[in-house]
Amino acid sequence: MSSAVSPLAPTDVPEMPEIPGVRLATAAAGIRYKGRTDVLLAVLDKGTTVAGVFTQSKCPSAPVEWCRASLGRGGSSKAGSARALVVNSGNANAFTGKTGRQATALTAQIAAKAVGCRPGEVFLASTGVIGEPLDATKFDGVLGPLAAQAAPADWMSAARAIMTTDTFPKVATATVKLGKAKVTINGMAKGAGMIAPDMATMLAFVFTDAPIAAAALQSLLKSGVEDTFNAVTIDGDTSTSDTLLAFATGAAAEHGAPKISRASDPRLKAFAKAFRGLLADLAEQVARDGEGARKLVEIIVEGAVSKRSARRIAMSVANSPLVKTAIAGEDANWGRVVMAVGKAGEPADRDRLAISFNGIRVARSGARDPSYDEAEVSAAMKNPKIEIRIALGLGKGRDRVLTCDLTKEYVAINGDYRS
Amino acid sequence: MSSAVSPLAPTDVPEMPEIPGVRLATAAAGIRYKGRTDVLLAVLDKGTTVAGVFTQSKCPSAPVEWCRASLGRGGSSKAGSARALVVNSGNANAFTGKTGRQATALTAQIAAKAVGCRPGEVFLASTGVIGEPLDATKFDGVLGPLAAQAAPADWMSAARAIMTTDTFPKVATATVKLGKAKVTINGMAKGAGMIAPDMATMLAFVFTDAPIAAAALQSLLKSGVEDTFNAVTIDGDTSTSDTLLAFATGAAAEHGAPKISRASDPRLKAFAKAFRGLLADLAEQVARDGEGARKLVEIIVEGAVSKRSARRIAMSVANSPLVKTAIAGEDANWGRVVMAVGKAGEPADRDRLAISFNGIRVARSGARDPSYDEAEVSAAMKNPKIEIRIALGLGKGRDRVLTCDLTKEYVAINGDYRS
Repeated sequence: MSSAVSPLAPTDVPEMPEIPGVRLATAAAGIRYKGRTDVLLAVLDKGTTVAGVFTQSKCPSAPVEWCRASLGRGGSSKAGSARALVVNSGNANAFTGKTGRQATALTAQIAAKAVGCRPGEVFLASTGVIGEPLDATKFDGVLGPLAAQAAPADWMSAARAIMTTDTFPKVATATVKLGKAKVTINGMAKGAGMIAPDMATMLAFVFTDAPIAAAALQSLLKSGVEDTFNAVTIDGDTSTSDTLLAFATGAAAEHGAPKISRASDPRLKAFAKAFRGLLADLAEQVARDGEGARKLVEIIVEGAVSKRSARRIAMSVANSPLVKTAIAGEDANWGRVVMAVGKAGEPADRDRLAISFNGIRVARSGARDPSYDEAEVSAAMKNPKIEIRIALGLGKGRDRVLTCDLTKEYVAINGDYRS
Repeated sequence: MSSAVSPLAPTDVPEMPEIPGVRLATAAAGIRYKGRTDVLLAVLDKGTTVAGVFTQSKCPSAPVEWCRASLGRGGSSKAGSARALVVNSGNANAFTGKTGRQATALTAQIAAKAVGCRPGEVFLASTGVIGEPLDATKFDGVLGPLAAQAAPADWMSAARAIMTTDTFPKVATATVKLGKAKVTINGMAKGAGMIAPDMATMLAFVFTDAPIAAAALQSLLKSGVEDTFNAVTIDGDTSTSDTLLAFATGAAAEHGAPKISRASDPRLKAFAKAFRGLLADLAEQVARDGEGARKLVEIIVEGAVSKRSARRIAMSVANSPLVKTAIAGEDANWGRVVMAVGKAGEPADRDRLAISFNGIRVARSGARDPSYDEAEVSAAMKNPKIEIRIALGLGKGRDRVLTCDLTKEYVAINGDYRS
């Protein structure tokens, strides 16, 4: 396991403000790691709404199933309300059968008792080893004191407690006007490759004091994730536990923020933009912490027959081991980009293709660009950020995906024996 | 570029018999490599039929387009006839625009003149760098002497001339009865990962003296490839140049082999089986020479809702970087197998899944097998051949895919700068 911080880590880490209605506490419960925090409890004021999006895996983890059920629980009046979030690192509680379901129920009971709410208002996320039973009794005696000491301040500690093989904590914040009131959005994420040595998952949690109804928040989240978290790939391996939850405490209503019940409400425009920007920021940090990554890679596809087609082509390029190893070798190997476009199965005309690396066009009209200058391109490939732009010349479909390079370090991190 | 022979190379290399009606010759044309042969000419007697299957890439190479056109050329009476095969290594003639099309036409003209046939009876395959123009004039003065010196014997030289980063030549042979006559099938292949440092492609050529009409041969090839070459993946990266051609000279008719016009002819049964076995042998050799490979990996999926669904799940596992790096690390990491099953998007019920490594069941009913013994499994993972068996428990769909592990050597081979 690599302990050095990724060379792509952001240099500016924001000051994280408080979010009225959210209190945080962390503890070292000894689930797997020694000498570090591995449990986060977020306590949410009454009236907090919640929305979530989850892994598309057909074999989801027990906490994912718990959260899906909680989102719909309690009849229409109670659906989408949250009072607590419990996140543990070190054990994913995935592929643990009946024991796994029992562990989620027990954890939620312990948290509900500590916070004073129903178990259906508790949301859970676990990340770490797959297939190992999670001993939920470890939360007993831990969550009670955490609920008592939870405080609005320490977001960085919270972001650290949910890390597995991440090399840096990932946080983002935004302040925006809702009506005439100032509201705040804070977010944190973990993930470094879909799976680190036996550790699974991308997790992200977003909190705001804006008063937004659950259905509207769900709509914001669903549309916001499409071009942010869903447009990031490290290795194409989708975790069984990916979870993104958003919580809105509504506390800003006290100083005049309007209550929003529909995502289409025009007053939500600035908020929606800030919300999306925060998701994009966190998603990019995940790519920047890709296992073994030395290059942040942005794949832009334009001129496709549709956005959906552009996304598929961009993903085919972003997940190609041969494209990713070429970038690790600082090689502007556009032949491999052609290969990856060709295998995507989407409409593409070889003789109209144009490809650029960091703004330098290397191929056009189905052949090498006549002005191709190897030295110029080689120099550009030394940049820690690489943009590959693919113009198909067929239509107006456009999309963008973030990934990273594939290095020997990735193989070392993931090929080391579990211990 | 690694020069050591793969540790998975077959220990028995067959004696390759002659095929009446096929003559071979090789030369060093200096297309890219120095001090080795890089051109193969196969001269085929009049009356030879041909069939072909090609890459599904939307950006195919110029030789692939040439072969596709040749297969259908000359009206129904002439379609499917072949007199020559020209293969070069070092340059793929892919993504070379108009120049590429001109190069195939010129190569075919030179070969046709040398052999005494129509250009439409010449088949071409090129493998090597993508995007570099191929100077076909290099074949002028080379193919004439090759046609004159072509002889029935030296199959190993032919298999060597078509190699790029392959670490061993790949050949297979079979003898089988057609009617009461003995007929022979010889095959050769190249490919070591879909693409080696800038070199593209899996190529395979099969020759027989059996008298089989082009349409029947095409039908045999199409059905034979499904569970052989199409069931092998090294890195999921489909080449722009994959080509598999089969040639039947019909010479065995002279000693009594019946002329076969339909693939459904019951007399073809033994031949079809031998033909399929030979394709499977060559395909396995490609997996055994996967770039950087240290383990041959067989993924068996059973109990899926259909064979098609089983194939998709097997391919999802076979192409997962996390499964492949785990195998390189000799780690029976079944959690990653669950992940890869889950992301395939096919019907799967987590709580019915069972997974075995080399016959040792590690998971069943959605959780770790109660009899799991880490030491026993670790010992089994040291084997150079790893079988992962996934039982879904849903239906009768079954399939099998071959792949190899993902090692640092793969990254080194493909991350080295083109030179």
